[in-house]
Amino acid sequence: MGKFHSKGLKSSFSLILLFIWLAIPLALSADEGMWPYNLVPKDYLAKKYNFKVTDEWLDHLRLSSVRFGGASASFVSPEGLVLTNHHVGRGAIQNLSTADRDLVKTGYYARTRQEELKCPGVELWVLQEIEEVTDRVLSAEKPEMSPQEAAAARQKVIAEIEKEATEKSGLRCSVVTLYSGGMYHLYKYKIYNDIRLVFAPEEDIAFFGGDPDNFTYPRYDLDISLFRIYENDQPLKTQHYLKWKTSPLREGDLVFCSGNPGSTGRLLTYDQLIFLRDVNYPFTLKNYKRRQALLREYCQKGPEYERIALNTLFGIENSIKAITGYHSGLLDKSLMAKKQQEEQQLRQAVAADPEMAKDYGSAWEEIARAQEEYASFFKPYYFLERGGAFNTVYFNLARNLVRLAMEKEKPNEQRLTQFREARIASVKRSLLTPAPIHDDFEIFKLTDSLKQLKEELPDLPETKWLLGSKSAEEVAKELITGTKLKDPEVRQQYLDGGLEAIYQSNDPMIKLALLVDPVSRGLRMRYEKNVEAVEVKNGTLIARAMFKLKGTSIPPDATGTLRLSFGVVKGYVENGKKIPFQTTYAGLFQKAKEKNNQPPWKLPERFLQRRAALNLNVPLNFVATIDSIGGNSGSPVVNRKGEFVGTLFDGNIQSLPTRFVYEETISRSVMVHADGIIEALLKIYDAKPLVDELLGRK
Amino acid sequence: MGKFHSKGLKSSFSLILLFIWLAIPLALSADEGMWPYNLVPKDYLAKKYNFKVTDEWLDHLRLSSVRFGGASASFVSPEGLVLTNHHVGRGAIQNLSTADRDLVKTGYYARTRQEELKCPGVELWVLQEIEEVTDRVLSAEKPEMSPQEAAAARQKVIAEIEKEATEKSGLRCSVVTLYSGGMYHLYKYKIYNDIRLVFAPEEDIAFFGGDPDNFTYPRYDLDISLFRIYENDQPLKTQHYLKWKTSPLREGDLVFCSGNPGSTGRLLTYDQLIFLRDVNYPFTLKNYKRRQALLREYCQKGPEYERIALNTLFGIENSIKAITGYHSGLLDKSLMAKKQQEEQQLRQAVAADPEMAKDYGSAWEEIARAQEEYASFFKPYYFLERGGAFNTVYFNLARNLVRLAMEKEKPNEQRLTQFREARIASVKRSLLTPAPIHDDFEIFKLTDSLKQLKEELPDLPETKWLLGSKSAEEVAKELITGTKLKDPEVRQQYLDGGLEAIYQSNDPMIKLALLVDPVSRGLRMRYEKNVEAVEVKNGTLIARAMFKLKGTSIPPDATGTLRLSFGVVKGYVENGKKIPFQTTYAGLFQKAKEKNNQPPWKLPERFLQRRAALNLNVPLNFVATIDSIGGNSGSPVVNRKGEFVGTLFDGNIQSLPTRFVYEETISRSVMVHADGIIEALLKIYDAKPLVDELLGRK
Repeated sequence: MGKFHSKGLKSSFSLILLFIWLAIPLALSADEGMWPYNLVPKDYLAKKYNFKVTDEWLDHLRLSSVRFGGASASFVSPEGLVLTNHHVGRGAIQNLSTADRDLVKTGYYARTRQEELKCPGVELWVLQEIEEVTDRVLSAEKPEMSPQEAAAARQKVIAEIEKEATEKSGLRCSVVTLYSGGMYHLYKYKIYNDIRLVFAPEEDIAFFGGDPDNFTYPRYDLDISLFRIYENDQPLKTQHYLKWKTSPLREGDLVFCSGNPGSTGRLLTYDQLIFLRDVNYPFTLKNYKRRQALLREYCQKGPEYERIALNTLFGIENSIKAITGYHSGLLDKSLMAKKQQEEQQLRQAVAADPEMAKDYGSAWEEIARAQEEYASFFKPYYFLERGGAFNTVYFNLARNLVRLAMEKEKPNEQRLTQFREARIASVKRSLLTPAPIHDDFEIFKLTDSLKQLKEELPDLPETKWLLGSKSAEEVAKELITGTKLKDPEVRQQYLDGGLEAIYQSNDPMIKLALLVDPVSRGLRMRYEKNVEAVEVKNGTLIARAMFKLKGTSIPPDATGTLRLSFGVVKGYVENGKKIPFQTTYAGLFQKAKEKNNQPPWKLPERFLQRRAALNLNVPLNFVATIDSIGGNSGSPVVNRKGEFVGTLFDGNIQSLPTRFVYEETISRSVMVHADGIIEALLKIYDAKPLVDELLGRK
Repeated sequence: MGKFHSKGLKSSFSLILLFIWLAIPLALSADEGMWPYNLVPKDYLAKKYNFKVTDEWLDHLRLSSVRFGGASASFVSPEGLVLTNHHVGRGAIQNLSTADRDLVKTGYYARTRQEELKCPGVELWVLQEIEEVTDRVLSAEKPEMSPQEAAAARQKVIAEIEKEATEKSGLRCSVVTLYSGGMYHLYKYKIYNDIRLVFAPEEDIAFFGGDPDNFTYPRYDLDISLFRIYENDQPLKTQHYLKWKTSPLREGDLVFCSGNPGSTGRLLTYDQLIFLRDVNYPFTLKNYKRRQALLREYCQKGPEYERIALNTLFGIENSIKAITGYHSGLLDKSLMAKKQQEEQQLRQAVAADPEMAKDYGSAWEEIARAQEEYASFFKPYYFLERGGAFNTVYFNLARNLVRLAMEKEKPNEQRLTQFREARIASVKRSLLTPAPIHDDFEIFKLTDSLKQLKEELPDLPETKWLLGSKSAEEVAKELITGTKLKDPEVRQQYLDGGLEAIYQSNDPMIKLALLVDPVSRGLRMRYEKNVEAVEVKNGTLIARAMFKLKGTSIPPDATGTLRLSFGVVKGYVENGKKIPFQTTYAGLFQKAKEKNNQPPWKLPERFLQRRAALNLNVPLNFVATIDSIGGNSGSPVVNRKGEFVGTLFDGNIQSLPTRFVYEETISRSVMVHADGIIEALLKIYDAKPLVDELLGRK
C-alpha cells in the first residue's frame, strides 16, 4: 500500500507537494475496489484481514464465475449448474413463456434433466485467462499522432491482438481498456450456448417489493434462478464450481464478490461529472420516464400485454432508480466539492513538476472541451447512432445485419469494434436467436420513439423523409407488419447474402437501417474522434500522472469485465436507526402482512400454504460492505474458504453515489443468503434433488 | 486475311462444316472495321489498296489524334492547335458564355494568344502506347469460378495492371476489353488540362440545317472549332500534328479516320439485339422524347433560357435521331434474319465439334437468360443507378463526392472501376470544374425527372420518402436552392474531408445521394453479377470460338477508344438519285435560299455580307465509306500521306444501322472538307494568321 514510483520526481519541491497531496485519500483506502483478477491487492488483504490470497484460490473463483448477458453468475455444482439472479435470468425465462404458460409468473422447476428447458439466444462466458498487453498496445502510438490517429493505431493493434489470440486459442478474446487507457489487458473467454432453465421461483417472491423496494434495505427477495450449461447435449462437467457454505454467516465476516460490474466513474474528471450531471443524466431520466409511462400504459391493457412488457418495464424502472441515485450523488454539493478539490490537488502536483506539467498538464482542459463538444450533439447521437428513435428489437436486428454486411467488406482492424473477427460469432448468434417477438408491442414502442424523433429532431432530413407524410403510428405499423425479420431463417439468408442481399432488400426495416446509417455513422465518427479519442488520450495521461505519483494502488473503474471486490458482513445505521445485517423469512411474512399482501408485496400462493413448513429464522437476505455496481447482479459472494454464501442482487439506495466516490459507512451490497435459498428449495419447492446437488450430497 | 487457327479442329467432319460456315461473310469483308492501332489489317490494305501501313505512319497518326470528352480531335499545328467539331467543343464554348456574351451564337476568334480563352473543366487525352495484357488478365480466372467470381478476379488484376502502369509512367492507364472479353489491351494516355478556345464559327453555320438535317446528306456545315493546348502557360510544342492537304480530293481516294468511336454491337448475340430492340431502345427513346419536349418548353421561355438549354437539347435530339436510326436497323426484318442466320451457322459449327460444343456451346443461351434478367430491372437501374431520376449536374457532383469518399476506403481493386487509383485524378478534376451551373435550369430538369420517378417507380421506399409529402417541384427547389455544391471550394472541402465530411454533411444534395446509394448499388451489383459478368464470360467464349474458326480478322466492336478506320471518298445512290461525294459553298447558299434563310437554315450575317468574297466552288462537306459511329465526331480524316483532308462530323441516315451490320453501298461518313475550312477562315473570318498556322506558312 501507498507505494509510489520515485521515477520522474525531479525536485524536493515537488516531493513536498507530493506528500501534501498524498495525504488526500485518493489512494486505496478501506475496502474500495472492483479489482481485475491480476491486480488484486494481496498485501492489503494480508495486512488488514490476515488473509493470504493464493493464485489457486483466485483461479478457482475466477473459473467458477460466469458472465450472464451484461451481468453475473456462478457454477454451483460439478454438473454445470449455474446460479444467478431471477432478474438476470428473467429475459430467458420470459422467452420460454407463452400466454398459456407464463413461467415468469408461475416459476419453474425441472424435476428431471429432460424437463430442463433450452433457452434460445442465451450465451454464458467463463474467463479463462488474462494477459497483459499494455506495452504492445501503447507501442502503436507515435508522439506526432493526433488523438484520433492514435486511437486508430491502437484499435488496429487491438484488433490484431484479438484476432491472433482468437485464432490461437479458439476462445473469444477481447482487449479491455483500464484506467481510461493507462492499461490494456487481453481477456479470453470460453463461451457456452446450450443453456437450459432448471429452476425459477415465482416473480412475486423473486422481486418481492417490486420497484418501490428496489435499491432499498431491509429486503426479502428470493432473487435467484438456476440454469444448466450443456455441451454436446450433456450437462457440462466442471471441476471449478463453488461449494455451498455449511457454517453460519456472522457480522464482521470477510466476504468476496466475483462478478462483472458494468461501469463506475470514480476516475472521471470534474468536467466529465458535470456533463453527466447536467446533460446525460437529465436527458436519460426524462427519456426513461417517458418509456416507463408508456410501458405502464401498455401493461394496463391486460394480463397478456403485461406479461410481454413487464421485463422491459422492470429494466427501465431499475435504470431510473439507479440513475436517480447516481444523479443524487452528483447533485450533492459536498460530494462535488470533494471531487473538485481532489482534482485540483492532483493538477497542482502535476503543475509543480515541470516535466509532468509538460506531459500531462493540459489533459483536464482537453477533456473539458470534449464534454462541450459532446453536449452539442448528444441528442442526435442518442436518437440515431444509439437507436433511441427506433425502439424495437427489429431495428437492432436490421442494423446489425446491415452493419455486419458492411463491416465484413473492410479489413478487420478498420471495422467497428463490434464486428471484428474476434467478436463476430457472438453478433451472429444474437442475430439468429429464435426468441419470440411480439409485433403489437414492437409497434407500440416504435410508435412512441418515432414520435419522439419528430418532436426532438424535426428538421433532420431523415425525420422528414420518414415521417413527413405519415404519422408515427402509420410508419411504425408499416415497418413492423412489413418486415420479415421475425423469422431467424430470413436473418440467416441476409447473413449468407452479404451486402448484395442487404442492398437488394425490400424489407422495410432493412431499408430504415440503411436510411439512417450514414447520418448515424457521421455522429459516431464525431463522437469517436472529438470525444472518445480525446477522453482516452487525456485519460491515459491523467492515469500515468497518477501512477507516477501513487503507483497502481488506485483501483480502475469498472468496465463490465470480471472483477473481485471484498468487504465485511455488516449492518448500518440509517437516520439513527440500526439496520441489522440480515433479514429472515419471518421478516418476509411480516412485511407482506404490513402491505396487506398486495402487489408488489403479494406472496405466491405456495408461500402462504407452506409457511408452517418453513423455519422462519432462516436468513433470507443480508448486506456487506462489498464494493459493487450494476452488472454485479448474480455475482457469487464467497467466504475466506471460497464457499458460496450468497448471491448479490442489489445495493441499498446509499450505495448508488458510490459510482463516483467509494463509501462504506452506509453503502451496502445486498445478497440472497445461501441458507435462504436451500430453505425455500426444500420447504416450498420440494426440490430435494436440486438441494442435494447444491450441497454435494450424492 | 482469312487465316484461321487449325488448333482445336478435331475431325474432318467439323472441318467440312467450318468451310461451309466460312463462306458466310462474317469475317472482314470490304472496308469494315474500326481497328485498334495494334490490330490494323495491314495485309488487307496492302492487297486491296496497294497501301503499305508503316509503324511510323501509324504512330504519327495516333500521336496526332486527340480524345476530346467522349469524342475526337487532332493536332493541326506544331503549336498545340487542336481541331474538332463545333458540336464537340460546344459545351466548352457555352461555359465561356454569359447572357451578355454568347460565344455559341456569335462565334469567337482569338486574334492573339492573349485572347485565347481558358476552358474550365476541359481535358484532352493523347494515346501514348498500347500494351497487350490479355494473358495476364485471363490468367486470373480459374475454371471453378462463377462468372462473377471470375469478373472480380479479372477486375482485381486489371486494377493492379492500371495502378502499376500509372505509377510507372505517370500516364492515365486503363485496360480496354475487346471482343466482349476475348482480348485485353492496356492504353496509356497523356492528359492535358489547360485548354483554350481559339476559334469557333457561329452556331448557325456550324449546325446549319439543325436537327432536321442532322444525319442527312447532302450537307453544308462548318462544324469545326479550334482549341489550343497549353502547358506551363505556354502553347504545347508537338512534333506530331497533321499537315494540311494541298492537292484536291477526288472520288475513289483512299482516306483514313482516326478517332474514338463509342460503341457498336456487331458482335452482340441475337438475344442481345432483341433486348435492345424491345426493351432498351423503346424505353430510351420515350425518355429522350420527354426530355426533348421539356427542353423545348424551356427554350421557349426566352433567349437566355434557350442559350442555357440548347446544348443539352441538341445532345438529346442527336441521340434521338441516332437511336431511331439504330432501332430502325433492328426493326428491319431482313437485317435481323441475317443476324439470326449468321449466329445459327456459328452455333452449328461450334456444336459440330465436341470439344468446342463443350467449351462454348451454352454461351448463347446464357447470354439470352442474362437479357431476360436485365429486362426485369432495367427501369429502376436506369432511374437510380444511372441517375435518370435525378437529372441535374448537382446530383452527379454529389454522387461522385459520396462514392469517391466511400470507395477510397476500400482496397484499390475492390473499388468501383471509376474510382480506382489510375482514374481518380480525372474524377477529382471533374469535381472541381468551375463550369457555370444555372439553378433555374437545374430545378426545371430535376422537377421533371423526379416526376418521372414518381410515375414510374411509385412504390419504391426511396420514392415515397423523397416525394411522399411534397411535389416534385417543391423537392427539386429545396434540393437545388439548398445545396452548396455550386462552389468548387465547397466540393474541395468534401474531397479533403472524406467520408467523415460526407456522413456529417447537411447538404441536401449529398443527403439525396446518400439516400439512394444503397438501392442504387444493389441494382448495380445485380447488373454486374447477373448481366455484365454473364455477358463477358460468354462473350469471351463466343470470341474464342470465332478466333478458332476465323482468326482475328474480325474487327472488335467499338469501345470508345482510339481506332483507325478507312474507306474511299465516294458518292452514292439514294432512291435512284445520285448523291455527289462533295458539297460546295454554292450549295450552302442555294439551300439557305430554298429555306428562305429561316432557322435552322438561317445563315450568319457575316456569310450574307461576304458572299461575294467566297469562292463558291470550294467544297464544304464530303462523304466517304469510312466505318464510323458516334464518338468519331471531330476525328481527323487523312489521305495516304497522312495529311489532313477533313474532319468527320456525322454519318448519313443509312449509316445508323451499321451499328449492328457493316454496309458500304449507301452508308457514308460525312466530313467538313479541309478546303472549306480554309476558305471560310480566310474570307469570312479574316483569320489569316490562323490559316498560316494551319498551312505551315510562317
